[in-house]
Amino acid sequence: MGLLSEGLTQILIPVAAFIGLAFALFQWFLVSKVKVSGGYGDYSGYKDKDRLINEGDTEEGVDTLEVSIKCAEIQNAISVGATSFLFTEYRYLGIFTAVFGVVIFLFLGSVKGFSTASEPCTYNTGNICKPALANALFTTIAFFLGAITSVLSGFLGMKIATYANARTTLEARKGVGKAFITAFRSGAVMGFLLSANGLLVLWVSINLFKLYYGDDWEGLYESITGYGLGGSSMALFGRVGGGIYTKAADVGADLVGKVERNIPEDDPRNPAVIADNVGDNVGDIAGMGSDLFGSYAESSCAALFVASISSFGISHDFSAMSYPLIISSMGIVVCLITTLFATDFFEIKRVSEIEPTLKRQLVISTVLMTAGIAMVTFFALPSEFTLFNFGTEMSVKNWHLFFCVAIGLWAGLVIGYTTEYYTSSAYSPVKDVADSCRTGAATNVIFGLALGYKSVIIPIFAIAVAIYVSFSLAAMYGISVSALGMLSTIATGLAIDAYGPISDNAGGIAEMAGMSHEIRERTDALDAAGNTTAAIGKGFAIGSAALVSLALFGAFVSRAGINTVDVLTPKVFIGLLVGAMLPYWFSAMTMKSVGSAALKMVEEVRRQFNTIPGLMEGRAKPDYATCVKISTDASLREMIPPGALVMLTPLIAGTFFGVETLAGVLAGSLVSGVQVAISASNTGGAWDNAKKYIEAGGNEHAKSLGPKGSDAHKAAVIGDTIGDPLKDTSGPSLNILIKLMAVESLVFAPFFAAHGGLLFKLF
Amino acid sequence: MGLLSEGLTQILIPVAAFIGLAFALFQWFLVSKVKVSGGYGDYSGYKDKDRLINEGDTEEGVDTLEVSIKCAEIQNAISVGATSFLFTEYRYLGIFTAVFGVVIFLFLGSVKGFSTASEPCTYNTGNICKPALANALFTTIAFFLGAITSVLSGFLGMKIATYANARTTLEARKGVGKAFITAFRSGAVMGFLLSANGLLVLWVSINLFKLYYGDDWEGLYESITGYGLGGSSMALFGRVGGGIYTKAADVGADLVGKVERNIPEDDPRNPAVIADNVGDNVGDIAGMGSDLFGSYAESSCAALFVASISSFGISHDFSAMSYPLIISSMGIVVCLITTLFATDFFEIKRVSEIEPTLKRQLVISTVLMTAGIAMVTFFALPSEFTLFNFGTEMSVKNWHLFFCVAIGLWAGLVIGYTTEYYTSSAYSPVKDVADSCRTGAATNVIFGLALGYKSVIIPIFAIAVAIYVSFSLAAMYGISVSALGMLSTIATGLAIDAYGPISDNAGGIAEMAGMSHEIRERTDALDAAGNTTAAIGKGFAIGSAALVSLALFGAFVSRAGINTVDVLTPKVFIGLLVGAMLPYWFSAMTMKSVGSAALKMVEEVRRQFNTIPGLMEGRAKPDYATCVKISTDASLREMIPPGALVMLTPLIAGTFFGVETLAGVLAGSLVSGVQVAISASNTGGAWDNAKKYIEAGGNEHAKSLGPKGSDAHKAAVIGDTIGDPLKDTSGPSLNILIKLMAVESLVFAPFFAAHGGLLFKLF
Repeated sequence: MGLLSEGLTQILIPVAAFIGLAFALFQWFLVSKVKVSGGYGDYSGYKDKDRLINEGDTEEGVDTLEVSIKCAEIQNAISVGATSFLFTEYRYLGIFTAVFGVVIFLFLGSVKGFSTASEPCTYNTGNICKPALANALFTTIAFFLGAITSVLSGFLGMKIATYANARTTLEARKGVGKAFITAFRSGAVMGFLLSANGLLVLWVSINLFKLYYGDDWEGLYESITGYGLGGSSMALFGRVGGGIYTKAADVGADLVGKVERNIPEDDPRNPAVIADNVGDNVGDIAGMGSDLFGSYAESSCAALFVASISSFGISHDFSAMSYPLIISSMGIVVCLITTLFATDFFEIKRVSEIEPTLKRQLVISTVLMTAGIAMVTFFALPSEFTLFNFGTEMSVKNWHLFFCVAIGLWAGLVIGYTTEYYTSSAYSPVKDVADSCRTGAATNVIFGLALGYKSVIIPIFAIAVAIYVSFSLAAMYGISVSALGMLSTIATGLAIDAYGPISDNAGGIAEMAGMSHEIRERTDALDAAGNTTAAIGKGFAIGSAALVSLALFGAFVSRAGINTVDVLTPKVFIGLLVGAMLPYWFSAMTMKSVGSAALKMVEEVRRQFNTIPGLMEGRAKPDYATCVKISTDASLREMIPPGALVMLTPLIAGTFFGVETLAGVLAGSLVSGVQVAISASNTGGAWDNAKKYIEAGGNEHAKSLGPKGSDAHKAAVIGDTIGDPLKDTSGPSLNILIKLMAVESLVFAPFFAAHGGLLFKLF
Repeated sequence: MGLLSEGLTQILIPVAAFIGLAFALFQWFLVSKVKVSGGYGDYSGYKDKDRLINEGDTEEGVDTLEVSIKCAEIQNAISVGATSFLFTEYRYLGIFTAVFGVVIFLFLGSVKGFSTASEPCTYNTGNICKPALANALFTTIAFFLGAITSVLSGFLGMKIATYANARTTLEARKGVGKAFITAFRSGAVMGFLLSANGLLVLWVSINLFKLYYGDDWEGLYESITGYGLGGSSMALFGRVGGGIYTKAADVGADLVGKVERNIPEDDPRNPAVIADNVGDNVGDIAGMGSDLFGSYAESSCAALFVASISSFGISHDFSAMSYPLIISSMGIVVCLITTLFATDFFEIKRVSEIEPTLKRQLVISTVLMTAGIAMVTFFALPSEFTLFNFGTEMSVKNWHLFFCVAIGLWAGLVIGYTTEYYTSSAYSPVKDVADSCRTGAATNVIFGLALGYKSVIIPIFAIAVAIYVSFSLAAMYGISVSALGMLSTIATGLAIDAYGPISDNAGGIAEMAGMSHEIRERTDALDAAGNTTAAIGKGFAIGSAALVSLALFGAFVSRAGINTVDVLTPKVFIGLLVGAMLPYWFSAMTMKSVGSAALKMVEEVRRQFNTIPGLMEGRAKPDYATCVKISTDASLREMIPPGALVMLTPLIAGTFFGVETLAGVLAGSLVSGVQVAISASNTGGAWDNAKKYIEAGGNEHAKSLGPKGSDAHKAAVIGDTIGDPLKDTSGPSLNILIKLMAVESLVFAPFFAAHGGLLFKLF
């Protein structure tokens, strides 16, 4: 037993969760002090600083109260649009969840023919465990809980983001520092709400389930895996649906607005502009929130499941068993301190300080968390224990686990910094891509694709080292806590990630409300930094997804009762090959969906420009609602095929080809999907920032390529448009593909082990 | 023992090879009857047929004797350029081959500390085998032989292609049918020379090596694997170097010529035009020849090696042992008959008949070969025998092997037809891509990428089925003969593949020589069909590479003495992950190389247009030589890093991380590389044909997108340019990456097994 008593563990976890919730609410309160449609506020203290910090008073004629009211209106339109889309989406998801819940119950219930008799335990031999039917029921309940929590995470994120965007715009009148704090605080609200909420629901569920399961921890933690499945399946539809929504609108708006009509981004005359801004909130915010919640829930479930069949579970050491939850609790505290470094300990005075401040968040949280992990490991774990390792047992010391968690955490930092290097215009890769625009769009695309491919190298080595170390030290448990390590600073990661779309929206609102050029420049500066941090966030999401799905894969293999996955058997090899193909199939679907929806959007926007008299001159209002409807319809219709591909593949592979082939499919999709996801998201990020680099004209080189409207800039816009579906639809959805197939396999493993491989049984 | 005696086998194989050589020379003779710089010849019999077949006589003023002499000059310039490049390249390759030969000798010699004492055999237990030092020596010799044969294959292919291009142009004056036959015959010369030559050298080597090895067939066929390594390593540099050469010139020429200056493709005023045409011959012809020879040599070596440690080898059944060679012999005969269907049995009368004729070649050869395989299997193999299966033995019947070979053959056909569906403008995928050009280059690229991703699905399932069946029926031997099955019709495959670049060049010559629009239209029609067949050829190359490298992987694993490659061990898993990353790293290098070289080419072409007075008006000649030099320098310099990546990875992984990690790397790069290769080559092919579809304006839809110079056409040109490095540099090189790493691992397996895994041994 470790030093931490069960009672203390049962207090510390909810306390940490409540601290996180309280902090989130406090940040929300601070943001809410910015009054939309109010006056200017006091910004007399900001005189004679950085140019962009304060020159607002010279343009009072533009940024009047009237403009402020307009901001409120636009914010309202975006919020209403996003809420209405999400509710429509949730109606579909509700049906899916209900149906799939029944599937889970029937499949798992059938494992022992719906018998209500208790069974001898599988791993904790000699003891009696609850019937398979109970596991089926509780897994289904956990699935519903996960789904609800995931939806809640996305929805609350969207709410705070649409609450914060206009406030950020209005604060931008006072200076870039104030605007930054507003945007970042709002991001923090989302980060803390999500991480605290996820932890709390998981803790409550475990304790409630325990009332029934008692000493049968095998069944208890087996059922809890449903929580991960619920979270991740909502995330899939959220990411794919939201991704298609946002990119159909974005690509459509850009192709007509920027390329054909030569009007600026977010111009209120563009009929697709509201849809575009709604898209940021349903895709980049709600989708991403569900995604990261899914990763968090899955890695916790994978770790808990492996622990439950190891000595922790068998000797009923609750504190050690709850090690994954305690790490997350510590993470909340660490992230809270980290946040203060951005919002309170220092003050942003120059535009150039934004990106370093955001990057510093990553370093601070990582360094603090390393100490936190050491503490948690020392107190919560016994100094030595045994772990389940595919049929054998391995003896592990507590400091081994410290290394597992820490290496995951630091691998995340390496991935984050690599992503930044490849997607920020401060470094040579993006500059090279921008430079290649000189010779047109073709070379831009060639260089951009090459950049994306190259950006895979270091993250893969980082993940490989993390896997090797944690796998060697603590088998699959090591991998799962390594994934948790990478996700332990999720609150900070989400804060800087959500900051991006909020700033992006703020810029859109400034443009639409007709605010001064000055304000727009400030929000653009916020947004440029946000682009890089969004790429970093995606890097984290993908890196952690790789670890999480490997952990889930290991848990699946353990639960399916196979001890080797030998590539030298045909069953496994064809699984590997077909699995490696799935990310391509999935990407083909999502990209084609964005492309087709964008084509429809283009036609509608063109139609409006051609048929509404006075629209280009700003005398008539465009019909925003039709564009919103096109995006909504397209995303709801088009999210079904890729969703079905991901949800059905494990069921088909497991039922007809058996667990070995399914194991091959999971391994193949994992090793292939990671590469596609990283390269897609970095290519897109690089193109976006290469375009911004040319537009900003911040140095001689950039000036020689610009200005807006030059041939090089046009080539850059084409690259940016191609990158949109790559970086915001197919790329980030892929990490859900690999996680979700793994967690689904884990949940259905008892069924596949009992009844799977029909096709091979027949022949 | 089978029905075929050893003596008869020893006669039949060389006879088939000589038949192949004789047929190739006869075809060459037929092509040579077309006189370059001669008169018109007789084409009176062609009156009143298809418009493109014969209207030449209406334009006598354009296609005069003078023009014909000009053709000869251009042909000569291309031939000289290609020869000079290849000789320069071979000088580099010579140094590499010498150095790597020493590496092979030292590594393999060191396995038993350079001892000259005979050893007990590894598999044929109880017998005495030759010393490891002898194997090192003979492997090195086989490596040199493979390298020389590969270089010869590429070089001869280039020679006949540059011999045939102007002849095709001149025959186009008589009609499209004549031109087709000339181009196709020349392709056949290459196909038969290569397949017969490869078979003959292999047969001679085995018989010569046997003089020393006598009854030690283990050592004999172990050494022969060097033949595959030699062939494939030359192919790598040929493909990469040639690919960079041709695409730097092509992209550079298009970006300035077509996009900026608005002059047609292959216009003689374009300074990069000769480099572009030379590139077709060194890249698409010489590179591809070496590539397919490599596949052929490797699959034969893999099959022979596995057979040598199975009952064939142990009971010294030479005929059964030579089963792979007999299949290839039968392939030559079948392809000979197939060729006659295109050149003699039927006559092409309409443009619309070209593509079906080429496609029919595939079907005819596949059907005939199926019967051929049945015969060979019945005569050469005993009715039952045992095969080596990773440490165990499996009992196999001869008809099992028939199914293995046949399923490989038919999987090849499925891959070919799928490729055609996704890259030919006759079907909806390419039409959709063309249609997406309406909204600009960005949607074109998005749709094109999605098409490439989607085109992976069916080939992967075809390969998976082939693998599952042959793996289940006859373990790794099944896989290797399945690969041989796919490659058994290589002569026909190469003929229709080489036909493409020859027609492309013929078009170029027509344009440069200032021949009539009519002639150009005919060569364009030939070329459009060639584009699709080139894509089919690449599909074959990739599909067979997948099977070959799996066979080599199996042989490597057998030879390294490991019986499982368990994904659930950290060593293997990190290998798998990093292996899956390698195709991306490699593609990043090659695409960046093409991009950079193209940028240099663009600058040079622009410089010439800007500084040479009268160039645009056709009054002054451009400086072709400088452009040739840029392509040459770039390709020779840039082929080294990707080459080093491929050659060093197995050595580093095996030496420092050991055979398990290396096995993971091979499996990972195989399952990931296949997808990248297929999608890259089909995306590129589709863009190319979408552009051609718009240019040709063959139906209402195409007309609505065109004509040349319309916005949609410009967007299509951008897609085509992006596709160039994808389909002709990085895509096709990837299949060499996966094969070469596997065969290199196989050759070095004894060293890795004895001394590998240093890093894990240290810690």
